[in-house]
Amino acid sequence: MYLNHDKSREERCGIPEVVFGEGKSAEELVAIVDTFLKDLGRAIITRISPEKTEKVLSSIDINKFLVVHNRKGRVLSIKKKDFVSVSVGRVGVLTAGTSDVGVAEEAAAVAEEFGCEIIKVYDVGIAGLHRVFGALEQLKDAQILIVVAGMEGALPSVVAGLVSAPVIAVPTSVGYGTGEGGKAALFTMLNSCTPVAVVNIDNGFGAAALAYKFLKMNTSGPQK
Amino acid sequence: MYLNHDKSREERCGIPEVVFGEGKSAEELVAIVDTFLKDLGRAIITRISPEKTEKVLSSIDINKFLVVHNRKGRVLSIKKKDFVSVSVGRVGVLTAGTSDVGVAEEAAAVAEEFGCEIIKVYDVGIAGLHRVFGALEQLKDAQILIVVAGMEGALPSVVAGLVSAPVIAVPTSVGYGTGEGGKAALFTMLNSCTPVAVVNIDNGFGAAALAYKFLKMNTSGPQK
Amino acid sequence: MYLNHDKSREERCGIPEVVFGEGKSAEELVAIVDTFLKDLGRAIITRISPEKTEKVLSSIDINKFLVVHNRKGRVLSIKKKDFVSVSVGRVGVLTAGTSDVGVAEEAAAVAEEFGCEIIKVYDVGIAGLHRVFGALEQLKDAQILIVVAGMEGALPSVVAGLVSAPVIAVPTSVGYGTGEGGKAALFTMLNSCTPVAVVNIDNGFGAAALAYKFLKMNTSGPQK
Amino acid sequence: MYLNHDKSREERCGIPEVVFGEGKSAEELVAIVDTFLKDLGRAIITRISPEKTEKVLSSIDINKFLVVHNRKGRVLSIKKKDFVSVSVGRVGVLTAGTSDVGVAEEAAAVAEEFGCEIIKVYDVGIAGLHRVFGALEQLKDAQILIVVAGMEGALPSVVAGLVSAPVIAVPTSVGYGTGEGGKAALFTMLNSCTPVAVVNIDNGFGAAALAYKFLKMNTSGPQK
Amino acid sequence: MYLNHDKSREERCGIPEVVFGEGKSAEELVAIVDTFLKDLGRAIITRISPEKTEKVLSSIDINKFLVVHNRKGRVLSIKKKDFVSVSVGRVGVLTAGTSDVGVAEEAAAVAEEFGCEIIKVYDVGIAGLHRVFGALEQLKDAQILIVVAGMEGALPSVVAGLVSAPVIAVPTSVGYGTGEGGKAALFTMLNSCTPVAVVNIDNGFGAAALAYKFLKMNTSGPQK
Amino acid sequence: MYLNHDKSREERCGIPEVVFGEGKSAEELVAIVDTFLKDLGRAIITRISPEKTEKVLSSIDINKFLVVHNRKGRVLSIKKKDFVSVSVGRVGVLTAGTSDVGVAEEAAAVAEEFGCEIIKVYDVGIAGLHRVFGALEQLKDAQILIVVAGMEGALPSVVAGLVSAPVIAVPTSVGYGTGEGGKAALFTMLNSCTPVAVVNIDNGFGAAALAYKFLKMNTSGPQK
Amino acid sequence: MYLNHDKSREERCGIPEVVFGEGKSAEELVAIVDTFLKDLGRAIITRISPEKTEKVLSSIDINKFLVVHNRKGRVLSIKKKDFVSVSVGRVGVLTAGTSDVGVAEEAAAVAEEFGCEIIKVYDVGIAGLHRVFGALEQLKDAQILIVVAGMEGALPSVVAGLVSAPVIAVPTSVGYGTGEGGKAALFTMLNSCTPVAVVNIDNGFGAAALAYKFLKMNTSGPQK
Amino acid sequence: MYLNHDKSREERCGIPEVVFGEGKSAEELVAIVDTFLKDLGRAIITRISPEKTEKVLSSIDINKFLVVHNRKGRVLSIKKKDFVSVSVGRVGVLTAGTSDVGVAEEAAAVAEEFGCEIIKVYDVGIAGLHRVFGALEQLKDAQILIVVAGMEGALPSVVAGLVSAPVIAVPTSVGYGTGEGGKAALFTMLNSCTPVAVVNIDNGFGAAALAYKFLKMNTSGPQK
Repeated sequence: MYLNHDKSREERCGIPEVVFGEGKSAEELVAIVDTFLKDLGRAIITRISPEKTEKVLSSIDINKFLVVHNRKGRVLSIKKKDFVSVSVGRVGVLTAGTSDVGVAEEAAAVAEEFGCEIIKVYDVGIAGLHRVFGALEQLKDAQILIVVAGMEGALPSVVAGLVSAPVIAVPTSVGYGTGEGGKAALFTMLNSCTPVAVVNIDNGFGAAALAYKFLKMNTSGPQK
Repeated sequence: MYLNHDKSREERCGIPEVVFGEGKSAEELVAIVDTFLKDLGRAIITRISPEKTEKVLSSIDINKFLVVHNRKGRVLSIKKKDFVSVSVGRVGVLTAGTSDVGVAEEAAAVAEEFGCEIIKVYDVGIAGLHRVFGALEQLKDAQILIVVAGMEGALPSVVAGLVSAPVIAVPTSVGYGTGEGGKAALFTMLNSCTPVAVVNIDNGFGAAALAYKFLKMNTSGPQK
Repeated sequence: MYLNHDKSREERCGIPEVVFGEGKSAEELVAIVDTFLKDLGRAIITRISPEKTEKVLSSIDINKFLVVHNRKGRVLSIKKKDFVSVSVGRVGVLTAGTSDVGVAEEAAAVAEEFGCEIIKVYDVGIAGLHRVFGALEQLKDAQILIVVAGMEGALPSVVAGLVSAPVIAVPTSVGYGTGEGGKAALFTMLNSCTPVAVVNIDNGFGAAALAYKFLKMNTSGPQK
Repeated sequence: MYLNHDKSREERCGIPEVVFGEGKSAEELVAIVDTFLKDLGRAIITRISPEKTEKVLSSIDINKFLVVHNRKGRVLSIKKKDFVSVSVGRVGVLTAGTSDVGVAEEAAAVAEEFGCEIIKVYDVGIAGLHRVFGALEQLKDAQILIVVAGMEGALPSVVAGLVSAPVIAVPTSVGYGTGEGGKAALFTMLNSCTPVAVVNIDNGFGAAALAYKFLKMNTSGPQK
Repeated sequence: MYLNHDKSREERCGIPEVVFGEGKSAEELVAIVDTFLKDLGRAIITRISPEKTEKVLSSIDINKFLVVHNRKGRVLSIKKKDFVSVSVGRVGVLTAGTSDVGVAEEAAAVAEEFGCEIIKVYDVGIAGLHRVFGALEQLKDAQILIVVAGMEGALPSVVAGLVSAPVIAVPTSVGYGTGEGGKAALFTMLNSCTPVAVVNIDNGFGAAALAYKFLKMNTSGPQK
Repeated sequence: MYLNHDKSREERCGIPEVVFGEGKSAEELVAIVDTFLKDLGRAIITRISPEKTEKVLSSIDINKFLVVHNRKGRVLSIKKKDFVSVSVGRVGVLTAGTSDVGVAEEAAAVAEEFGCEIIKVYDVGIAGLHRVFGALEQLKDAQILIVVAGMEGALPSVVAGLVSAPVIAVPTSVGYGTGEGGKAALFTMLNSCTPVAVVNIDNGFGAAALAYKFLKMNTSGPQK
Repeated sequence: MYLNHDKSREERCGIPEVVFGEGKSAEELVAIVDTFLKDLGRAIITRISPEKTEKVLSSIDINKFLVVHNRKGRVLSIKKKDFVSVSVGRVGVLTAGTSDVGVAEEAAAVAEEFGCEIIKVYDVGIAGLHRVFGALEQLKDAQILIVVAGMEGALPSVVAGLVSAPVIAVPTSVGYGTGEGGKAALFTMLNSCTPVAVVNIDNGFGAAALAYKFLKMNTSGPQK
Repeated sequence: MYLNHDKSREERCGIPEVVFGEGKSAEELVAIVDTFLKDLGRAIITRISPEKTEKVLSSIDINKFLVVHNRKGRVLSIKKKDFVSVSVGRVGVLTAGTSDVGVAEEAAAVAEEFGCEIIKVYDVGIAGLHRVFGALEQLKDAQILIVVAGMEGALPSVVAGLVSAPVIAVPTSVGYGTGEGGKAALFTMLNSCTPVAVVNIDNGFGAAALAYKFLKMNTSGPQK
């Protein structure tokens, strides 16, 4: 086991350390969770399969912890019952299609665990613009919008042209043909006329972490 | 001079032969124009520079011909005064930005020369959706829309979701960074949720030729 | 379940909403079909596996509906017995190889469901040009040709040079080596000398939807 | 002239309309500036060459306006003397090398024009990490950091691991070999372990606009 | 001057050494020509500009040599008057468009210098298949066909399906949009249903050298 | 079943029609074999799995036919006992590694079935050049060499610099990292200093068919 | 069985021949091991699965040999008990993440077998730079560092800027989105400001072999 | 002027800081040289044009300094007369073609300035392997070989299979068609069977710096 975790990450770079579950064995995850719970009082794992989730949960006394498992988003969070969460703001999460929901749920689950209030509106692709207008009405209290889209990836550009809230754009690998793998969506977002903040393909976690960092941004005056 | 032109092209495949001016010398173009005027009564050249245009025009007796030169679209058309044009339909041409206008003008000039009535609305990018709605109102009589866009290339998808007229999408090489060269726009269009007919990057001619073929499409019943 | 369907799609953008079955669970498809049948009287699903088809069909009383399942094309259509279809025109579907037939059948099944009369000629690759000539004879009544090809993807270019009917070109991911994934075929079609309308790799549905939009194209005069 | 400008952009999507100077002629820019000054009281042009700047400036009575020309950043700003700017926050701008300074200056000039206070530290590549630590000390009052890097593009990742301020990462096309064009830097930033908000290659404007949107972000409570 | 030429190349690997003129200065070429003429009695230079040609020719006593300069193909050949050429066979050279002629002439000039009889038919793209049939009639005595095409690059595939002579396919960088640079044509040729021998983009020399090697191929029985 | 086979292929384009087994069901292959045996007296299938081979063989009376199955090369050949094969020449087949043997065996099996005498030398990568020299000694009677290589793909270039026999180069998809999929090997071969005839990645069949076409090349004088 | 092994490799090019296990059957590996043990006294196999390892080990009398199996690194080494190893130097191996450990172990196992002393520090990504400083302290006696990283691949650049020992950089295919397959990490390393020696993606073996060659480098004076 | 130079680079990471001249103005270079000469006693600039060289040299009193200008390699070195250079070892530099000489000279000039003795053999491509053997004989005293190649880039692999000295491979952007830009050569080198240390395309400086670092490598025993 090569475990070299970074206890001071949150105070140093403003984001709690989160464990990327893909490519790690259940045994490795059990050991990591144990260490995190002891050192930080909370462990958040992304990209965790149902099988590994089960093994991790059977390794702890679940009565002693608060456990949240977002199966669709593949996010598992375990924390001590006295873990103190702080509310940081309101994040809207939109998807263009139903197939983008997994990535959106990863973003939503992580952001919620970080203390964001989440408002979700899914399946509002630009083929039906009236649905976009409806969705934006529902999201009018959100301070930041995370917009998730695969295929041609145009939804974040359209949304960014319609609202003053900043948009974090997440391309997904949903698609086929030239859209397969998400590069078409990624490049669309990078080339958006109205600027959007782009993260890697399928990187729901990254969008959540960014939203969190921006919401916690220092708003006091400089120390002149 | 290697000139092997295809007199029967229009009756065979439904599109008049058009000369691609790029990479041909002024001398070659003069010879080609001479042959076309004799054989077909009309010569249309695309991608022709102002310098070559001047040389070609100085090689003919311009009083004997109808000459149309679209400088922005780089299209030159020369035809005998008795050349008979047939009206085939109404084509709307939109662009997302002012930089896409050169490609749009190539499409418009060729389509007009082929007998299409052209309605143009330029610079209606999706950063200002209200402009798109205004443009579509102006274009409501068009039977086919040619939508030209560079950068993220999302305008054709947005338009196709709003109108019942079929859309021919033309990506342009306008852009920088990952948008340079037009591939981002091309892949956006190929992955559009609402299907659009895509042509090659900067291929204004192709869009015009396709519009013409679709407008001339056989509408009579089958010969059963 | 995130279902946000678009009842007005056909009247707004000229194409009925069709469900993309890939990446959706059988349960999601059952719920979608139920909603569509109630709201629109018809549900069309593409990219549906035999297993999901079975589950969807077992969820309805199949005596009350007209069911068409194109297994090769992976298209399932269910409609109320009194659903009114309108005939819109004649579409020819060609393939270069037998391996392209799945994509061609997707196009054919969708176009037929939309009201097109379909004429199919399969396996007429350009290695045997005499077969192409024979095929075009069979297709002479078609108003639009959908030409499906993988590998080097040259068939649409060859066909477009021989007929006056407009050609919609569909690249397929059939091939190996540099042809794998369909990009070689796609780029061949985009660079065709005789312009063709290109859709995304394996996008049989897109070709059908475009053919339908062009056949329904407004042919009346403008409202001057 | 195809000019269709978007007067309501700022109130709708939170960013003033800015003119992209590349690919527009001096004449077009003169006309655009005239319109903007009349309608909005301010015109900001990016990617403007010294020659075009001169022509634009000679078209106005420069005694009546406040003019700022950032030659290195290729940004020209002209505004009425009574134009009211609002201070929105403090933005740090870092570059990895001296060759990245042009892009950084574009970001700084635009952000400053939008009302941000700018703190610049340039030429602090990761080959000398001690310089990075020094730079971060200088930037400790910045609320958002714009980090600009070409070549291998690792500076934003390193910085994001060291500070709690959110990072907007701008890849530049500075480099040669596989780094040419900026894709290596772009992909490095998208794959950063500590999430950063990525914009298109050389897109200094985009970074500035995003920083501005995030600084103006709604910080009041929701309207429950 | 770093000159390290390979006098034994022809006897070892069956192709005379040919000088690639691009990227070499006129002075370097003059020195190389001098050495080749002394050692081998002949110097062939490809990719040589008119300016360098002039300088090279002015460095020799042109009355003592046979000089052939193919300007369009950018090939210069200089040989002693008593240089003995051997006839090796008949090569047909086709091009799809007039813009491909430069590459075709490079192939033709080199192959002719190597002792091949050349039959040329240019500008027979597949948009007019009847021209292809006519060309093949003219080329029926050719033992090998070199087929040169840019854009979609389909001509070699079509020709290879119609004749029993082996085809060497040369993609050209003629084209725009996705065809720019020749990769679309290259991949088309590599994926041809009827196999063709492919060389690098614009590599007229390579096609000529291959044709020469195949024509000189050992036809006697094995030395058992 | 969409079967449209091409009985006249050999006399027209010089290569017998060969069936590509991948992507066809056993049932389709059984029907195709039946037709081929009736019409042409022989059926050759490439890319056929052991399972499909078994099914095809159980569909015929194997006592009436000559059956050759190359399991490693995945080639199955069935012909009537009175099928007349003609000897056309001697082909050497080399591979760089043992992992390239499958592709080499496809080439060897097809070429042998076409009437070529095959000389094989496998596993002679350039890491041990002395092995290359040894191999070329064994291959000195071969008229054409088929050289198969994955990874960096340099063997064909090295061989072509050492022998006067023409080289057909086959890149393979053997490799990992940037070599995965065969593009590194393909581009090495296309850029070889000594020209080689390149076919698609893993295209053993193509190499065999080309070798056959070149060996059968018309060697008689022209019909002047 | 095509086995053509290269007994003299070590004395010729300074690296013992190592068998690449992927794509070879257990039977082939058994035969290769047998030959290597007889000829060289040692067999090293990389990329060998647990199943093949078991089959290879069951084919030998393991009491007669020294066997080392690195399961995580997929390396198997078998040597005669009297095989003489020579110590060549000290190599440090770092990884950025725990998912890169497999590739690092391949490097470590091979280098150790070649006679290097190995110092390993794993999971020291740049998100926590203090861990990097700690790791370098542990590695201060290493003469060469092998630095393994996926994702954005910035660790080798950071390390090379901090130590005077030369760095061999190994990109890994660990990652998702644009990082998938390792090209982002590879290009980061190639574009590092402080030069590092780069090997192919996931090529732990290559890094080990290079380290060994550099450690054995001729340090005596020239033979003047 | 943004100049933030790194005086301690050599002692920290083992390579003197070298100025990359491309993209910096003559004025910037003059200022940098001035600072470097004062602080370090030496300034080395790579990628410097003849024009900028002249301007830099005219800014100093050249009688007080040792100046070396490698025009072909575009490297300028200026140092105080009492600057102490230390001899570190012997480096061989090979090129495949004459067009690769510019990159090789950059490597040679930098390595020489760093204290390496240089042995150069240029123009020894693999099309004439006997020349390679001759070159290696000349280079037998070199401790490290820098092998520079464009086109197919196979020379480093061939050399690495023949000598025990470690090879640093430099791909060049020399080539055309698919070889243009150097990626074909780069990937060949990364996939070499015998491992080589690869640097970025055209990165002669990187190769020199690496050679220097490896020659200075700690050869004393560990501080146990």
